[in-house]
Amino acid sequence: MKSIYLLGAAGSIGLQTLEVLKENPGSYQVIGLSLGSNHEINHEILDTFQPKIACLRTESHLKAYQEAYPTIRFVFGDEGLLDVADYNEPGLFVNALSGSAGLMPTVVAIMSGKDIALANKETLVMAGDTIKKLIKTYDVKLYPIDSEHSALWQTLRGEDPKAIDKLVITASGGSFRHLNRTQLKNVTVKDALKHPNWSMGDKITIDSATMMNKGLEVIEAHHLFDMPYEKIETVLHDESVVHGLTYFIDGTIKASLSISDMKIPIQYALFYPERRPYDKSLKLTNLSFKPMDFVRFPLLKLAYEVGKAGGIMPTVMNAANEAAVHLFLKENISFLEIEQIVMNTVKMHQLIEDPSIEEIIETDKKVQSHIRKIYEKR
Amino acid sequence: MKSIYLLGAAGSIGLQTLEVLKENPGSYQVIGLSLGSNHEINHEILDTFQPKIACLRTESHLKAYQEAYPTIRFVFGDEGLLDVADYNEPGLFVNALSGSAGLMPTVVAIMSGKDIALANKETLVMAGDTIKKLIKTYDVKLYPIDSEHSALWQTLRGEDPKAIDKLVITASGGSFRHLNRTQLKNVTVKDALKHPNWSMGDKITIDSATMMNKGLEVIEAHHLFDMPYEKIETVLHDESVVHGLTYFIDGTIKASLSISDMKIPIQYALFYPERRPYDKSLKLTNLSFKPMDFVRFPLLKLAYEVGKAGGIMPTVMNAANEAAVHLFLKENISFLEIEQIVMNTVKMHQLIEDPSIEEIIETDKKVQSHIRKIYEKR
Repeated sequence: MKSIYLLGAAGSIGLQTLEVLKENPGSYQVIGLSLGSNHEINHEILDTFQPKIACLRTESHLKAYQEAYPTIRFVFGDEGLLDVADYNEPGLFVNALSGSAGLMPTVVAIMSGKDIALANKETLVMAGDTIKKLIKTYDVKLYPIDSEHSALWQTLRGEDPKAIDKLVITASGGSFRHLNRTQLKNVTVKDALKHPNWSMGDKITIDSATMMNKGLEVIEAHHLFDMPYEKIETVLHDESVVHGLTYFIDGTIKASLSISDMKIPIQYALFYPERRPYDKSLKLTNLSFKPMDFVRFPLLKLAYEVGKAGGIMPTVMNAANEAAVHLFLKENISFLEIEQIVMNTVKMHQLIEDPSIEEIIETDKKVQSHIRKIYEKR
Repeated sequence: MKSIYLLGAAGSIGLQTLEVLKENPGSYQVIGLSLGSNHEINHEILDTFQPKIACLRTESHLKAYQEAYPTIRFVFGDEGLLDVADYNEPGLFVNALSGSAGLMPTVVAIMSGKDIALANKETLVMAGDTIKKLIKTYDVKLYPIDSEHSALWQTLRGEDPKAIDKLVITASGGSFRHLNRTQLKNVTVKDALKHPNWSMGDKITIDSATMMNKGLEVIEAHHLFDMPYEKIETVLHDESVVHGLTYFIDGTIKASLSISDMKIPIQYALFYPERRPYDKSLKLTNLSFKPMDFVRFPLLKLAYEVGKAGGIMPTVMNAANEAAVHLFLKENISFLEIEQIVMNTVKMHQLIEDPSIEEIIETDKKVQSHIRKIYEKR
């Protein structure tokens, strides 16, 4: 049995990863994981998977957990995530954390020799260049878990990267895809959380509605596949059936399709290069494609600019967005203010070329706390 | 430079193969080819490619060609095709002949150690089991040129055959796809030759309208990809943009797309595994898929039955169809009589299991001449 670590085990991707492990018994032993704030779910996870090390959100219930599970080593908070990442056994490190908190654990996991399966977008958005250097230095593997990147990865199986003409990521358009910008003024948090095709966490569902999610994915794809931004396109695709397409220089295109089910890309990353049975096949129906609308979705346009600028700028954009979405979910700001905050923050910030991990993390914290302070007071 | 042979050089696929060679200078030297009945085209081909051996349709103009091209060895007829196939230099043997005449040259080319790029459907339909044994024995490669099989082949790059759930071939439905069976009674040859998406030879255009073409492709796919008939499906797809899809056991699907341009699969076969530039990219628009209609297209249903029966039956079906299409193109029979002739011929014929190449060729000739005799007299 191979060893596996799972950060964000109690989140949407984390729980689906655990389901995949249950459906493929005997393949992986869960060595370490990080839990959430729902104790019932936490206990179920611990009872089922019996890890060697588990990270709690905070210190507050540490003793209770230690008493209930005396054989498990408990750690907590951001430091605890690093303890799991640094745990002294090789294996596959699945990072299903949401937000910038995911970056440092990935760095530490790579440096301790673990292969990485990445659902945390922020790792590559904030520090793609650094991560890629580390991957090389420590000779570990990096697999994507996002459905779009998994799709692209699959279309590239057996292909020479030199034969790629461009990569295309599809976008459903999110909860408000049928609304124009005027209609967006008064939308509510509840409306925003109704994604037409995917059942996901709150943050990513809002990011889908603003198209920031696709922007983050474009930056991720740039790093994952060593592709210049000019060769990464997005297309509107209502049905969320085609997740990614690779255009080759010889006029052919390869597309990867599946139902909207995150267990498919999770399982693919866990068992790559092997394809394990998963009995949820797609019924082929009509598929629609429309050119991306950068006026309707200005944050996607911004993401391309920020990606090309590079350096600290993707971190700034991501931090502003993370703070703004947090404020929107708490109903401190309106939906359209997310865009304004992100665009203004990026405009005001100075470029730092080639930032260190420390600078990246510091900038992320500064930008987020600055925005929260202003708008939480309001 | 690698050596290449091309049978059917003056046909639709042949001429497009020559264009691909012109667009990729310095890659291949044309050693041998077979010509057609248009002397102007023949001369242009000979002037441009200067082969060492060339096969004429008949003996009638042999002398004139010999005098015009004293350095080229001319042969003619079915025997001449075998001389080209048997020519004593290794290389890639492109078989772009139409009809059952393509079988024996493929057999001879394999036995003389040439790799095969196959546009001739009949080779595998009539003698798939034998061809596959020969390919193994003589350790040569077999590449498909048909757009659907090229598409499937591409989706299988880097994949483990054990991970395949099923293969899906798309069908445009041909010239009469919007007509019901009653409306088919009075269609003309001229109407039948108007394929909505592809510009191809007459025989295959008629086969598209009857869906016999898709039936032949299913049998070809069975042999090319070692797939049981239960795992090969067809789907109606108006746009001819997706040419083939592979469903994997893990719930993902890989599709291969391109514009309707045979030069794409030809170039792919010629330079595999390398993808060479070809600047005709697809603009992604809406794609429609409908389940195949076996009542509307009974010859496709028959092809599955005949394929499963195996032995001599695919040869019988193919021969009956070849004769019937010939009669239809000469306006001896109506469009719907093609189906009747093919179905009746298959029904009346006895199964020969594991036929020899000689039995296959004899049966093909017998069936064809029998049908022609009956209907040409009428």
